[in-house]
Amino acid sequence: RSHHPVAEMLDLPFLPFCVLLGGLGFVCVAFVSAWCQHWRGGFALDGSAQTFNWHPVLMVTGMVVLYGAAALVYRLPSTWSGPKLPWKVLHGALALAAFGLAVLGLAAVFRFHNDHGTPNMYSLHSWLGLATVLLFSCQVGAAPTPHAPASHFPHPPLPSLQWLAGFSAFLLPWAPAWLRALYKPVHVFFGSTILMLSVASCVSGINEKLFFSLKNGTTEYKRLPAEAVFANTLGLLILLFGVLVLGALARPSWKRPDADSPDSCQVPAPLR
Amino acid sequence: RSHHPVAEMLDLPFLPFCVLLGGLGFVCVAFVSAWCQHWRGGFALDGSAQTFNWHPVLMVTGMVVLYGAAALVYRLPSTWSGPKLPWKVLHGALALAAFGLAVLGLAAVFRFHNDHGTPNMYSLHSWLGLATVLLFSCQVGAAPTPHAPASHFPHPPLPSLQWLAGFSAFLLPWAPAWLRALYKPVHVFFGSTILMLSVASCVSGINEKLFFSLKNGTTEYKRLPAEAVFANTLGLLILLFGVLVLGALARPSWKRPDADSPDSCQVPAPLR
Repeated sequence: RSHHPVAEMLDLPFLPFCVLLGGLGFVCVAFVSAWCQHWRGGFALDGSAQTFNWHPVLMVTGMVVLYGAAALVYRLPSTWSGPKLPWKVLHGALALAAFGLAVLGLAAVFRFHNDHGTPNMYSLHSWLGLATVLLFSCQVGAAPTPHAPASHFPHPPLPSLQWLAGFSAFLLPWAPAWLRALYKPVHVFFGSTILMLSVASCVSGINEKLFFSLKNGTTEYKRLPAEAVFANTLGLLILLFGVLVLGALARPSWKRPDADSPDSCQVPAPLR
Repeated sequence: RSHHPVAEMLDLPFLPFCVLLGGLGFVCVAFVSAWCQHWRGGFALDGSAQTFNWHPVLMVTGMVVLYGAAALVYRLPSTWSGPKLPWKVLHGALALAAFGLAVLGLAAVFRFHNDHGTPNMYSLHSWLGLATVLLFSCQVGAAPTPHAPASHFPHPPLPSLQWLAGFSAFLLPWAPAWLRALYKPVHVFFGSTILMLSVASCVSGINEKLFFSLKNGTTEYKRLPAEAVFANTLGLLILLFGVLVLGALARPSWKRPDADSPDSCQVPAPLR
């Protein structure tokens, strides 16, 4: 690793970056909420178009912002010493909250489609989005298979198997060290992959929604009305958030120094 | 790093992975070409819809498949010993070919739009896609600014500044080692980022094109005709290709063992 003075000067510490990233995440949630509230008629639970509006808000908040926060927990330098258990609980709680919002977000769009007789699961956005949430549910599977999500899926998936796998392997004290060491790189790889797929799902979903909604006269998408500029900007902000989280996860100097050592058990070990 | 027997058994060598990935890249190019040939009327250069069809084929071939190949050059174990120059030339040549195809792919869609009086650069797909190619052009810039790509861009960008930056820093013998060490992580980070943005652009573009094209009666997108299943599958295959390339780039055991040492000059050094 280079220790040139210029390189060291450019080496941003994690905490200020984290504050900026948190601000960007807040802006993403505020933008998607403002879009749905100001241009798309606000929110409701009656199966109308206002019910659909929960879908973008919950997916961005859950699968992008909370998910990104969960992924970055172990980059906090304060997690590198002392007991790991509280941080594992925080990571698991954030991931579980993200999954809960994603399930509610899927429920919103299925409810809206079913109440309007619109088919579910035909667009590439829906295939990709469902594959992302399913991958989040099992995180052990390999790649999304093109045929599985093609069926008209009546209900969102409920059990988060990946969360259970992470919980069993890293939070329960009796998982053996070799199993943790084996599963950890898989968990980490699918962690980044799922965030990448989430971001691609958001971009294709925003694009699709704007083509659906902006159709007449002066509000045609191709005339780039204010709503289109606003929602396109939201798409780019979500992308920027995802790229920054993935970049932070990949940055070697922000990783826990002992990250290559096998994961310790929760039982206090006298030599640690 | 774990050396448990089970972990070692699962450790796929790079070369077989590379062959599988090459096959998947070929399938992506074949799928996008077959989509345009079989369902979208084939190819032409006269400004018609057949001119547009060059756009998806050239973008997928250039910004995904050739770009991914360029990114993976240094993961070939044969590049780890002996002179680096031939491999740098190969990396640069593949990246230059990718950029050339991307420029031609942008020219195809601008030509089609201009000949039909369709506005350029209004959808989120177009903003993201142009931001991706612009980032590929300079690779030093930070994030895509939401306002810059909003203008109706008449011509695709011609000079590939990022390629020139890589060329100057890594191929010319007089670039100092500290500059190479400083620029290398930036080059590597934006390398992965651009691939991620390319894949998100492809997914949103395929989704958008299917909504444009599948509108009447039995071929409505929501009825999931054969073309929709085929092109949705293409989108998932492109995503799988991108995820596998990014995963291969991130995998520690596939990196050049001396990757953390400062990049050597081309001038033979007696002590190396």
